[in-house]
Amino acid sequence: MNTDLQDFSHRRYNILTGEWVLVSPHRTKRPWQGKQEEVANEARPAHDPDCYLCAGNTRINGEVNPDYKDVFVFTNDFAALQSDTKEFKVNDGLLLAESESGICKVICFSPDHSKSLPDMAVEDITKVVKAWQKEYKELGSEAHINHVQIFENKGAVMGCSNPHPHGQIWSQSTIPNEAAKKHKHQAKYYQKNKRSLLGDYLKQELKLQERIIYENDHFVVLAPFWAVWPFEVMITPKKHYQSILDLSEEEAMAYAEAISVLTKAYDQLFNCSFPYSAGIHQAPTNGEANEHWHWHMSFYPPLLRSATVKKFMVGYEMFGTPQRDITAEQACERLKKLTAIIH
Amino acid sequence: MNTDLQDFSHRRYNILTGEWVLVSPHRTKRPWQGKQEEVANEARPAHDPDCYLCAGNTRINGEVNPDYKDVFVFTNDFAALQSDTKEFKVNDGLLLAESESGICKVICFSPDHSKSLPDMAVEDITKVVKAWQKEYKELGSEAHINHVQIFENKGAVMGCSNPHPHGQIWSQSTIPNEAAKKHKHQAKYYQKNKRSLLGDYLKQELKLQERIIYENDHFVVLAPFWAVWPFEVMITPKKHYQSILDLSEEEAMAYAEAISVLTKAYDQLFNCSFPYSAGIHQAPTNGEANEHWHWHMSFYPPLLRSATVKKFMVGYEMFGTPQRDITAEQACERLKKLTAIIH
Ligand SMILES: O=P(O)(O)O[C@H]1O[C@H](CO)[C@@H](O)[C@H](O)[C@H]1O
Ligand SMILES: O=P(O)(O)O[C@H]1O[C@H](CO)[C@@H](O)[C@H](O)[C@H]1O
Repeated sequence: MNTDLQDFSHRRYNILTGEWVLVSPHRTKRPWQGKQEEVANEARPAHDPDCYLCAGNTRINGEVNPDYKDVFVFTNDFAALQSDTKEFKVNDGLLLAESESGICKVICFSPDHSKSLPDMAVEDITKVVKAWQKEYKELGSEAHINHVQIFENKGAVMGCSNPHPHGQIWSQSTIPNEAAKKHKHQAKYYQKNKRSLLGDYLKQELKLQERIIYENDHFVVLAPFWAVWPFEVMITPKKHYQSILDLSEEEAMAYAEAISVLTKAYDQLFNCSFPYSAGIHQAPTNGEANEHWHWHMSFYPPLLRSATVKKFMVGYEMFGTPQRDITAEQACERLKKLTAIIH
Repeated sequence: MNTDLQDFSHRRYNILTGEWVLVSPHRTKRPWQGKQEEVANEARPAHDPDCYLCAGNTRINGEVNPDYKDVFVFTNDFAALQSDTKEFKVNDGLLLAESESGICKVICFSPDHSKSLPDMAVEDITKVVKAWQKEYKELGSEAHINHVQIFENKGAVMGCSNPHPHGQIWSQSTIPNEAAKKHKHQAKYYQKNKRSLLGDYLKQELKLQERIIYENDHFVVLAPFWAVWPFEVMITPKKHYQSILDLSEEEAMAYAEAISVLTKAYDQLFNCSFPYSAGIHQAPTNGEANEHWHWHMSFYPPLLRSATVKKFMVGYEMFGTPQRDITAEQACERLKKLTAIIH
């Protein structure tokens, strides 16, 4: 390993987005006198009569949730994107805007209010994966939907307003900023090399073994070289698959296992229900071949030093470049040890 | 005004960065059951013996602060960037990294621990502006410094670990991500039109009067058409100036006045010490003409509905596109009313 990367300030290039991250490894010694987050470790009941996601309960719009047994998907009651929105365009001098239509859904991972992904059996996580596949396929086949963003906000610190295990899907007609960057950089590489950019990167990482946290037959869990968040991790299939639809039954289970191992390790890291935003980047559903796409799921967890001290992406990060102190290799080392115990 | 922008989901284009923001005006009715931020409204003493930024106190590295009377600048004790860092490069397959050197400074706005910018007299804010000018000039003239990022993180929710009024400057050898985007888009427009992109935008906004919060002889305070944060605001000079060094004495005071009016309005909005990250984007100090640059200061405040409910830029925003509910025009309206009372 290049030890300079562990000792001196440097920037690393993100091959998928074309952007940089500033790494300041010597800065981990900085004392922290600022904000302490609350730790939410209190046990929750399996069913909460006040939770609008629990089975049988009434939601704010009067709808009653079915008595669901595993995964339950419904259209978001306060959807940011709607199918029947008015179409319009503003193209007036330097003002440019256009209407955006879409469909937003909520996906409850389990009827059990007390659980989160790391507490669920691999076979139950597999059911979540299957629901993601179904939604990606169905939403993606709608004429006005060209991009399907599957994600989860976990924990109050990540803006999640209900601890019931759930994620979201926002699908829409245009390709959003972050996906568009990855679209562009993967396409460029694919056109030139006729190989998957992420596939080639994976090969290199598997050889180096410096940032690999865990792998099974079909998936790799790694701290990407250009990771921004202290314990940022990517799960990606070894095969060059454009989307989660390409997964066989066995591969879907291997994916669920990777999620299970990673989220369990997260919870053990600071001995708390580890907050994060996770999202799947995969081929847009715009009817094109998108052969350059190699799908992956990323986890962006905010915690830095403990259950109560997070990394703030503020001033310099907002106006300059994302910045981190602990290196991807150090984060990998810590998570790897934990997955070894779990597995 | 195009009323569709106030009623239907749409995306708006940021002419400076080339990126989009998703606006969902119908979504402001969403109830909030999630995280409540703490309000820090308790009065602070003018001098706090435990504050490492107060005059005469000892900092963690043993240095004693001078008995300063207005502005005090020093090199950050835990600098993310350093001048004497080792130079190296990693260019190994798909891993790309390079050392980054720089200088990080802290700038105390006032010796008075109890104050923040909105509590300070315009002439005292002018002293801060002059310190920014001096630092931009001095740091920028160092051979290895090609970009000077001036910013302020205000409030615990913005990762600020000390309420003493202060900002920071991170200067470095490369141009960071966000500045690089604005560099590129301004240059493209300037090459084509031989005019400032932001200057032309300002003219259009001044004619429309839909997003102008406040103006004086030399500065405009506006909610940009493509604003991301609920109450995001930009302060920019009417003249096409590349950097804050171009300001005359009178203009520096007009700038301080604009900061004063805006931050006072912010504090009144939710009746609290309004948190934000603010930053100045201006010409890189790379020795080039940079005629396309039109400097501006932006404020990114996180609060959405009240002193305790902020907007979370999480899942969809991290993986897709920044999203907002309240429109820039609505935010402008509210802030404008407040500045009218102040002024
Ligand atoms: O330098 P400070 O105030 O200790 O730290 C704060 O600002 C820095 C620059 O935006 C961030 O990197 C830190 O995450 C934040 O807590
Ligand atoms: O939809 P929710 O869970 O109410 O809201 C949460 O996730 C959304 C999508 O990332 C964000 O826009 C909101 O700021 C956040 O609070």
